[in-house]
Amino acid sequence: EISSIRYLNPFPKDIIVSSDAVFPAEARHLQLRFHDKLKEALRFRAFLKSSLSETMNGLGYLDVETPTLFKSTSEGAREFLVPTRRAGYAYALPQSPQQYKQVLMASGLGGYYQFARCYRDEDHRADRQPEFTQMDLERSFATGETIMGDVEKVVQRAWDAMRGEYVLRDDGTSFTPVKRTAQQSLDDNSSTPATSDKVSEYPRISTPFPRMTYEDCMTLYGSDKPDLRIPNTILRVDENLSPDFVGMISHLESPIVEAWKLSLHEDVDRGEAQNFLRGFMETLHKSFHQNPDGAPQALAYDSSKPLQGFSALGPDGLRALQEAATPSSGLSDLQDGDMVVFQARRNRPHQGGWTKLGEFRVALYQAAVEAGLVERDDARFRFLWVTDFPMFTPDEEVDVGQGGSAGFSATHHPFTAPLGPEDVDLLFADPLRARADHYDLVLNGVELGGGSRRIHVAKMQEYVLRDILGLGDTKMAEFSHLLKALRAGCPPHAGFALGFDRFVAVLSGASSVRDVIAFPKNNKGVDEFAGGPGRISNEALETYHLQFKRRK
Amino acid sequence: EISSIRYLNPFPKDIIVSSDAVFPAEARHLQLRFHDKLKEALRFRAFLKSSLSETMNGLGYLDVETPTLFKSTSEGAREFLVPTRRAGYAYALPQSPQQYKQVLMASGLGGYYQFARCYRDEDHRADRQPEFTQMDLERSFATGETIMGDVEKVVQRAWDAMRGEYVLRDDGTSFTPVKRTAQQSLDDNSSTPATSDKVSEYPRISTPFPRMTYEDCMTLYGSDKPDLRIPNTILRVDENLSPDFVGMISHLESPIVEAWKLSLHEDVDRGEAQNFLRGFMETLHKSFHQNPDGAPQALAYDSSKPLQGFSALGPDGLRALQEAATPSSGLSDLQDGDMVVFQARRNRPHQGGWTKLGEFRVALYQAAVEAGLVERDDARFRFLWVTDFPMFTPDEEVDVGQGGSAGFSATHHPFTAPLGPEDVDLLFADPLRARADHYDLVLNGVELGGGSRRIHVAKMQEYVLRDILGLGDTKMAEFSHLLKALRAGCPPHAGFALGFDRFVAVLSGASSVRDVIAFPKNNKGVDEFAGGPGRISNEALETYHLQFKRRK
Repeated sequence: EISSIRYLNPFPKDIIVSSDAVFPAEARHLQLRFHDKLKEALRFRAFLKSSLSETMNGLGYLDVETPTLFKSTSEGAREFLVPTRRAGYAYALPQSPQQYKQVLMASGLGGYYQFARCYRDEDHRADRQPEFTQMDLERSFATGETIMGDVEKVVQRAWDAMRGEYVLRDDGTSFTPVKRTAQQSLDDNSSTPATSDKVSEYPRISTPFPRMTYEDCMTLYGSDKPDLRIPNTILRVDENLSPDFVGMISHLESPIVEAWKLSLHEDVDRGEAQNFLRGFMETLHKSFHQNPDGAPQALAYDSSKPLQGFSALGPDGLRALQEAATPSSGLSDLQDGDMVVFQARRNRPHQGGWTKLGEFRVALYQAAVEAGLVERDDARFRFLWVTDFPMFTPDEEVDVGQGGSAGFSATHHPFTAPLGPEDVDLLFADPLRARADHYDLVLNGVELGGGSRRIHVAKMQEYVLRDILGLGDTKMAEFSHLLKALRAGCPPHAGFALGFDRFVAVLSGASSVRDVIAFPKNNKGVDEFAGGPGRISNEALETYHLQFKRRK
Repeated sequence: EISSIRYLNPFPKDIIVSSDAVFPAEARHLQLRFHDKLKEALRFRAFLKSSLSETMNGLGYLDVETPTLFKSTSEGAREFLVPTRRAGYAYALPQSPQQYKQVLMASGLGGYYQFARCYRDEDHRADRQPEFTQMDLERSFATGETIMGDVEKVVQRAWDAMRGEYVLRDDGTSFTPVKRTAQQSLDDNSSTPATSDKVSEYPRISTPFPRMTYEDCMTLYGSDKPDLRIPNTILRVDENLSPDFVGMISHLESPIVEAWKLSLHEDVDRGEAQNFLRGFMETLHKSFHQNPDGAPQALAYDSSKPLQGFSALGPDGLRALQEAATPSSGLSDLQDGDMVVFQARRNRPHQGGWTKLGEFRVALYQAAVEAGLVERDDARFRFLWVTDFPMFTPDEEVDVGQGGSAGFSATHHPFTAPLGPEDVDLLFADPLRARADHYDLVLNGVELGGGSRRIHVAKMQEYVLRDILGLGDTKMAEFSHLLKALRAGCPPHAGFALGFDRFVAVLSGASSVRDVIAFPKNNKGVDEFAGGPGRISNEALETYHLQFKRRK
């Protein structure tokens, strides 16, 4: 029974609130308040964090906080600087707690983890934030195997906890986790939501996750983070193609040519398939069409046409192709409406994260999904370990070098250990061929995190930094604390970092990490709500013995 | 059965390891490895963090991460700047998530908490770190009462969990938490450690914690964070002293004179007491002797002397003093060896955190404890809420003003709500007399944290910033996001921030927060182990359109 009503704060009439009101990023407070999906994403995030922490504690990892006011070291990506009042000196915000956690291992801590805030001052391409959270972990007397096993345990338990608490609500194109109501048990899926959305259980996952080497990923999927939901692998076919066709799709001398097939729904007719393909090719980004290795060539199988639409391959072309086909490529079994894409590339070892065909494959598949033309993978969540990365990558392929003079940089970071004895030998003979004991965890084409066994012997670390990467004395000195710690009998150790924002985003069906961060920054690094970064005053700069650079 | 021994890493012979080896800060990796106490402190810290998180989750507070790349606002203490590649713009590292958490309340989140990294670029006096961790929390539709109650629950449960897992090992002058062994149950304290150290249970604590107003704290203890383990309160005695004596200890016109008594152990004899007192006064910091309000005057009670050693007070002086004594001052009951200290101060309202006698009281008590001359308080852990702080403090008393033109600043921060209706009225009439709904949690003289009910009405917030603090348009604009959020029907809310480093330090008997932080910075803000901050290069500065300031 209400006896009185008290007025706590007015609500202005110029704010329109309705269930479908769209608020701009500047009104994050209203988004958070009126967009249930966003608020639920924050609850889901907190749930996962708590669940992951619990398992990490149970596995004997110790939650240790490490500094974020670090110093600049030539570790890789660009760091933010934090000037100090001591003239000429600055802290740097670390891109990860990498060096401190290795020192913790050298200090005999056994196991460490932390939800660590990390920083990267880079062009905000793609879906990256200048500050992000990773669940960072490290363990002594561990190899990559130990860590992959532990990460599988942690993910599996978080997953099972999530299945217990959340179901998937699916509106056909995207899904959202929805807290299970009191009535819904794991086996009782009878309750129906008010809308026409489907509600289903999160599928089960099982460990160990499948593994694939970097080489296989690049060869079969054209990506070092393959989305295993996309059917059919890439097949190298240049030996099975006529020189005429190869010459038509590429000006390269003896290129590698690869083919990939996409099948549409059974009930998509030939005309529909060809319209879709034509539309897709027309709107394809120019970087595909203007590729110096040659543009992609997509052909659709059509039993009503001469040579089923593959006359460009020459009279025997299609047969030769099909005879070469591996089962996983699906090329031996072509049906009306199936599309086959051909793409040339330079004949050289894989470098970097993508081939052009790999990118095309993802783009075409996603377009087909959005157009409702392909079956969706029932498993929906496909985890994968990618292993055996090259230790070093030529500098042209990486964002920011490590400041050495070698012309190449550590693929991940210069503390990564070589994979096996033969890779140790290659460090001396041919470093670019040495493989690293590095592993990436990939889910549905998204890199959730990566880790490695680390170099734990000071002499080896020094060799990599000075002799392989070509760091001079000044840069070497930046690592003296780490070398000192390794030198004091540091045990072998390995670790991992889970990109927590991304983990939450993928599990909650969010298309951007911005949808699982309370106050995200836009792709220019601007907090559109609070208005940071702000103007610096001359007065503030003076505190740090700095001034604006004069324009010349 | 050992079948083989494999060599994993050498340990150099130039590192001497023994149980009493002392390693410098530069060898933090060796401190962590060989000083059990330090490693245990990190385990204890992780234990408390996990325990606090669990209770916060249970109370319905949601773990939400807020940005650390914020913008500079005139909120109080000095902020670090983080220059961006957009010329003239910088992020600022926040001293707390204050504004973001208030926006979360405006966004209808209900309850929020976070173990938040915070930053303060200040002179590293005392035991402060440029980066520190606080358990930050906020709740909607809450008053200070709600929050104090929740904090008590959280601390009580963490405390009980700690009592279940840890016992106190005491070496006479300091203590360490020691993980309970399998044999030790809560009631079985029979196991004896190898050393002569005493092992005991952590004492029980009970809630609610006692409360005291700022005025009472300053009057009775000379401090806004009184250490309740120190016996006897301060007594104002200028009306009971002869003008001669007052004139002797101060040149002030009509000063306030206060007295405080310290009793030593029963078995300390008069000579020992007087030697101790003489030694203490001789080594006392010059800021006491050179105090413009007058130096402290300490007298020891000695029944063998004329007027028991109090002849300076005049013939009737001691009797007048004793007749004025309150029971809590203990001055009516003087025994041989008891010391009484007199100190003058200006006759004006309390400002800031200490009176000179308050500082003297702590210094003398600590010296007596270290000399083994006083009984230790059995309860050992004395929590206290300090309430009813003034909303504003004259600028001379605060570190860094809020950039307004009023000549005073918000005592804590400008978002603190006035305590009651009479304080709202005082905002208009006499702001310096208005009390805030702010509460500090104090344990054994250490401020563990503070919080307040916040201003939740935009107009009131604007009035405080613009009209009371005198912020101009530019500075007002820095708060536009907060005002916008308050304006959209923000509910009343209140919160708290627990200084987690300090909480761990006090509970683990550490004399410095550095002993509970894996990689602390020294009092110049330098990470002596890793060597940060490092030199900035001109090249790095150019990225941010900055250069070193030319010397003139």
